[in-house]
Amino acid sequence: MEQTLRVAVFGASGYTASELIRALINHPRLEITNLVSRSHAGKKLSEVFPHLLPSYISELRLVDEPTQDYELAFLCLPHEASHELVPLLLESGKRVVDLSGAYRISEEGAYEEFYRFSHKHPELLREAVYGLTELFREKIKGARLVANPGCYPTATLLGLYPFLKFGLGLYEVIVHALSGVSGAGRTPRQEFHFPEMSENFFSYSVEKHRHVPEMEDAIRRLTNRDIKIRFTPTVVPTSRGMLSTIYLKAPKVDVLELFRETYKDEIFVKVLERPPHTKWVLGTNYCFVYPYYDRRTETYVIISAIDNLGKGASLQAVQNANVMMGWEEDEGLFQTPLFP
Amino acid sequence: MEQTLRVAVFGASGYTASELIRALINHPRLEITNLVSRSHAGKKLSEVFPHLLPSYISELRLVDEPTQDYELAFLCLPHEASHELVPLLLESGKRVVDLSGAYRISEEGAYEEFYRFSHKHPELLREAVYGLTELFREKIKGARLVANPGCYPTATLLGLYPFLKFGLGLYEVIVHALSGVSGAGRTPRQEFHFPEMSENFFSYSVEKHRHVPEMEDAIRRLTNRDIKIRFTPTVVPTSRGMLSTIYLKAPKVDVLELFRETYKDEIFVKVLERPPHTKWVLGTNYCFVYPYYDRRTETYVIISAIDNLGKGASLQAVQNANVMMGWEEDEGLFQTPLFP
Amino acid sequence: MEQTLRVAVFGASGYTASELIRALINHPRLEITNLVSRSHAGKKLSEVFPHLLPSYISELRLVDEPTQDYELAFLCLPHEASHELVPLLLESGKRVVDLSGAYRISEEGAYEEFYRFSHKHPELLREAVYGLTELFREKIKGARLVANPGCYPTATLLGLYPFLKFGLGLYEVIVHALSGVSGAGRTPRQEFHFPEMSENFFSYSVEKHRHVPEMEDAIRRLTNRDIKIRFTPTVVPTSRGMLSTIYLKAPKVDVLELFRETYKDEIFVKVLERPPHTKWVLGTNYCFVYPYYDRRTETYVIISAIDNLGKGASLQAVQNANVMMGWEEDEGLFQTPLFP
Amino acid sequence: MEQTLRVAVFGASGYTASELIRALINHPRLEITNLVSRSHAGKKLSEVFPHLLPSYISELRLVDEPTQDYELAFLCLPHEASHELVPLLLESGKRVVDLSGAYRISEEGAYEEFYRFSHKHPELLREAVYGLTELFREKIKGARLVANPGCYPTATLLGLYPFLKFGLGLYEVIVHALSGVSGAGRTPRQEFHFPEMSENFFSYSVEKHRHVPEMEDAIRRLTNRDIKIRFTPTVVPTSRGMLSTIYLKAPKVDVLELFRETYKDEIFVKVLERPPHTKWVLGTNYCFVYPYYDRRTETYVIISAIDNLGKGASLQAVQNANVMMGWEEDEGLFQTPLFP
Repeated sequence: MEQTLRVAVFGASGYTASELIRALINHPRLEITNLVSRSHAGKKLSEVFPHLLPSYISELRLVDEPTQDYELAFLCLPHEASHELVPLLLESGKRVVDLSGAYRISEEGAYEEFYRFSHKHPELLREAVYGLTELFREKIKGARLVANPGCYPTATLLGLYPFLKFGLGLYEVIVHALSGVSGAGRTPRQEFHFPEMSENFFSYSVEKHRHVPEMEDAIRRLTNRDIKIRFTPTVVPTSRGMLSTIYLKAPKVDVLELFRETYKDEIFVKVLERPPHTKWVLGTNYCFVYPYYDRRTETYVIISAIDNLGKGASLQAVQNANVMMGWEEDEGLFQTPLFP
Repeated sequence: MEQTLRVAVFGASGYTASELIRALINHPRLEITNLVSRSHAGKKLSEVFPHLLPSYISELRLVDEPTQDYELAFLCLPHEASHELVPLLLESGKRVVDLSGAYRISEEGAYEEFYRFSHKHPELLREAVYGLTELFREKIKGARLVANPGCYPTATLLGLYPFLKFGLGLYEVIVHALSGVSGAGRTPRQEFHFPEMSENFFSYSVEKHRHVPEMEDAIRRLTNRDIKIRFTPTVVPTSRGMLSTIYLKAPKVDVLELFRETYKDEIFVKVLERPPHTKWVLGTNYCFVYPYYDRRTETYVIISAIDNLGKGASLQAVQNANVMMGWEEDEGLFQTPLFP
Repeated sequence: MEQTLRVAVFGASGYTASELIRALINHPRLEITNLVSRSHAGKKLSEVFPHLLPSYISELRLVDEPTQDYELAFLCLPHEASHELVPLLLESGKRVVDLSGAYRISEEGAYEEFYRFSHKHPELLREAVYGLTELFREKIKGARLVANPGCYPTATLLGLYPFLKFGLGLYEVIVHALSGVSGAGRTPRQEFHFPEMSENFFSYSVEKHRHVPEMEDAIRRLTNRDIKIRFTPTVVPTSRGMLSTIYLKAPKVDVLELFRETYKDEIFVKVLERPPHTKWVLGTNYCFVYPYYDRRTETYVIISAIDNLGKGASLQAVQNANVMMGWEEDEGLFQTPLFP
Repeated sequence: MEQTLRVAVFGASGYTASELIRALINHPRLEITNLVSRSHAGKKLSEVFPHLLPSYISELRLVDEPTQDYELAFLCLPHEASHELVPLLLESGKRVVDLSGAYRISEEGAYEEFYRFSHKHPELLREAVYGLTELFREKIKGARLVANPGCYPTATLLGLYPFLKFGLGLYEVIVHALSGVSGAGRTPRQEFHFPEMSENFFSYSVEKHRHVPEMEDAIRRLTNRDIKIRFTPTVVPTSRGMLSTIYLKAPKVDVLELFRETYKDEIFVKVLERPPHTKWVLGTNYCFVYPYYDRRTETYVIISAIDNLGKGASLQAVQNANVMMGWEEDEGLFQTPLFP
């Protein structure tokens, strides 16, 4: 019989949790033993997520604190809560995949500026492995703490990585990324109230977005270079989906070849010869990427599509858990997109 | 020069208010002098509704209490607030169009059961004219207090009226009505958070809905008969739009002829020979109605379409104001639907 | 090792086919060997369905005629094409699950009136088993030809079945059902062009719909009674989802108990105590049903939700194949809904 | 009494026509006398556009050729049809606002490359005034032929104009623009079929888009400079709406001040201090623009929002007609956005 691992999901009432649970239900080697939620403690899973009524864990009750054994914790918590919980979990011998931003950036200074809290565990920032699997796979193996990337950084870094990997000097990087509304979380807000978001789209955090230091930090980890990214996010009226378009200058290469070479052994990255639709990766851990060199303006244009809750959050978290455990990387990740 | 009338809008920050203000901006004889809102007092209109930035009143500040003269009040308030405010306004000589449900039902008993407050002004319930313009036009003329109907009752009663007007005994009335999400108001709620409402639809208040006593009461006012209505509302993922489908038994008539005769002089009701799309009346005060007799099951099937915020709320409120003042009934109501 | 079965999918370019293929990809015992499509022959599966690019069969080419061995055929064809193909397939020893309407009604007369073609194989109409699994499971076992039900009949009959099963005389049956747009198929049409369908909803085929004789015929098969159904379908702006609301008169019973008893051993039917959201069953084979007795109007109100392409078409087809083969009924059908 | 002008609308069955007709119905000085459509000749307007049933011209029949007098023609035709018709109309003394691309670019060479037809009227390309009203107002006055701009160029050029007007050298211009689906026209297409476009978004024409030479040509007209624009369009699941985000390098200025100064006397351009929502301009001729200088990357980021069918097409056409006639520029253009 195959090795299985007991897991706890912290923050079990939000969207990243529901997507994670969807994957875990079908995962042959990960077993949910604790669903932890301060706000919904005492409720059955099917009360919090009626769509999970038919699942085998629908009767499981959410708890304040873990009550059953587990070895691995997935944190679907607010940044501040993860910041505090992670050291305690590590201390008690758990392994952690943190889906918040609390351990994604290696320098604690960024937290004051972008997250508005003072980071108290700089040593863990140094230890944490940034969980963009395709970029940091070797470090993820055996890691105690994986900081699962943000959705924008995931889509963007997968579009930049071939340039970074082959040491191609890149500059003038502009990223314009679009996201479905679920990226903003489950808490209702005026601008995302259905009547106002339907037939609407708009940019936000144009001046400052916390995914910028995360992306620049990941580039620094990979190349030791400081690259400044101009980043604009736009929210569009879908539940899920993310499209990152990267404009950059770099030495001339056969860009299609560069991407194919980079991703030839990757399960979850597919290089396309035409722009991807977000719906083609809906509900999956895939990234479809289309690289193009615009000769007229001497600009590379890279378009990558992911599901913000899939590869952009919870399914990549499972991918990371698989790598941490030394299992097949696609264990439990055979989702086929819902179409249409 | 034409007579103009100064108006105050109470509860100026919600959807019925924004639709009302849209109409008033273009109304040649109604002039907004007060925008009253407890929750948003002090803000400029364009802060509450950025889409009104270019309007001539965009700089007008919302106030706690009216500060300028006015003769007519539109109440876009919660039921309880309207319940309390109406007598004060009438006492001070104002005329009132109340868009809440507080004065729609003639018997105070219904309020305890369906609105969960005890109605303290039964005499005003008797005085209030139910503002379904096409059904109670004569009483609206000169009324001090018009209780503007709910959206479901508007769509439904316009589909029933031809039977009622000609005294055709009807029975076994089943109403299945669909509404866009704006009918639930502007306050964000979990189930109407865009990611959850997108690609979703569901029924609610299947057991008990406060529009039922309102519809039955209106029928009683017209016919002195007690007709029981089985009513199911379903919310669908649009911002606006309403479709009411009425199933009933009644003596055999030429139903198309009946409807044409009933509505032949009406500006805002159009009798169709095929099922209407809600988009055909989007942003207008029109009701498109399609009557059909199903010989096979001996059932009348009447389908009526309105914009829940248009004829279903704010534009009918303007229509009523026009009638109250003895003006042309379509003054300020020449909206053409947005298409597509 | 488990028994596997080779299957051919006819009409492999439409929505029921794409949903079917999604299920088959994950089915442990059904293996796709032929994807047949006149219109797309020669193309690779990933050209027809780019979202299937990562699947193990993405390179499979669609063919004019089957080229590989197979034992079971799923027909995702137009009614007329199925009508002609079925006898040929049976003759050559194949077993067939037909997702079209060509063999759903036991009397050939209905085809002239509702399908506009003259049925030439009345003997096969008699042989065909109507594939509403929960109602006709015993007959499906070992059947050569299963006529997979329409989406509206599936949702509706599952709501009626408890009354039929226990022989409760029912009458005055009115069905008002809502569907997402995918129910109308993949061929683009003016009214389903995104700009026109967005923010729109409307009823259609109010006078006559081919699912009516199908429902009435299924009731006749079960009860030998002629029940007339008044049926109105409404299309709403989602890709998927179906909600059928049934109004009927019947003797008084504990309706919740009746439903629980009926479905207590069913995997795919869940009895709820509140109205279901369509999103709760998105992408699955589940039916969530809410039964209610309205004392005030002495009317039963039954609301059932399915995914029109799931339980309403392709996933029920797989369920039927499982039953035909004597396998576990939920083999390959462990889909968890995409949420949000 | 005010001067009125009779107009003919050519190509009266598409989306730009329906939006134009919506405006003309409420225009006090433009009177529709001819609705010309090859494909729908003989039909009543309300058959082509059921939402126009209540309008005073709903019974007007579409015709093959104009049958009534008119002085001004609006062409809502395919490019090739406009290309041929314009010289004939001018010859017969009509004035023309052409909503197609046939006369937007001053050099005929672009037509071969971007429109795939050979332009036969270079002299008219020289005569035609590019109808971006705020940029070419003086030339529009008294013009015989106005080439109404494309939607992307309108949104983009209004974001660039302040730099151009004040002669600020700009370079490295990257434009990422989002559009609702109506920009692709009324003809149904697979990718815009509701089930596939819902919950989907994607870029297209990444390599080459015909609005690029149009934008570059307009810049050349204004500045005599060749500026190359890197342009990426993305389609998002709304019916209407457009957001153009412009990234550029230029000398340092107070960009907010620059924009305010440029547009201080404009009715239809509003300078915002935060990113606009497309819904704020829905159904109007407004452009809301937000300029921002990103010090960190030394990049200007300009975001402008329009309704692609409003300022992006038909309402700007009316604005141009008003300017051509020397009328108030906002005559008939008092639309207030539909909200929510």
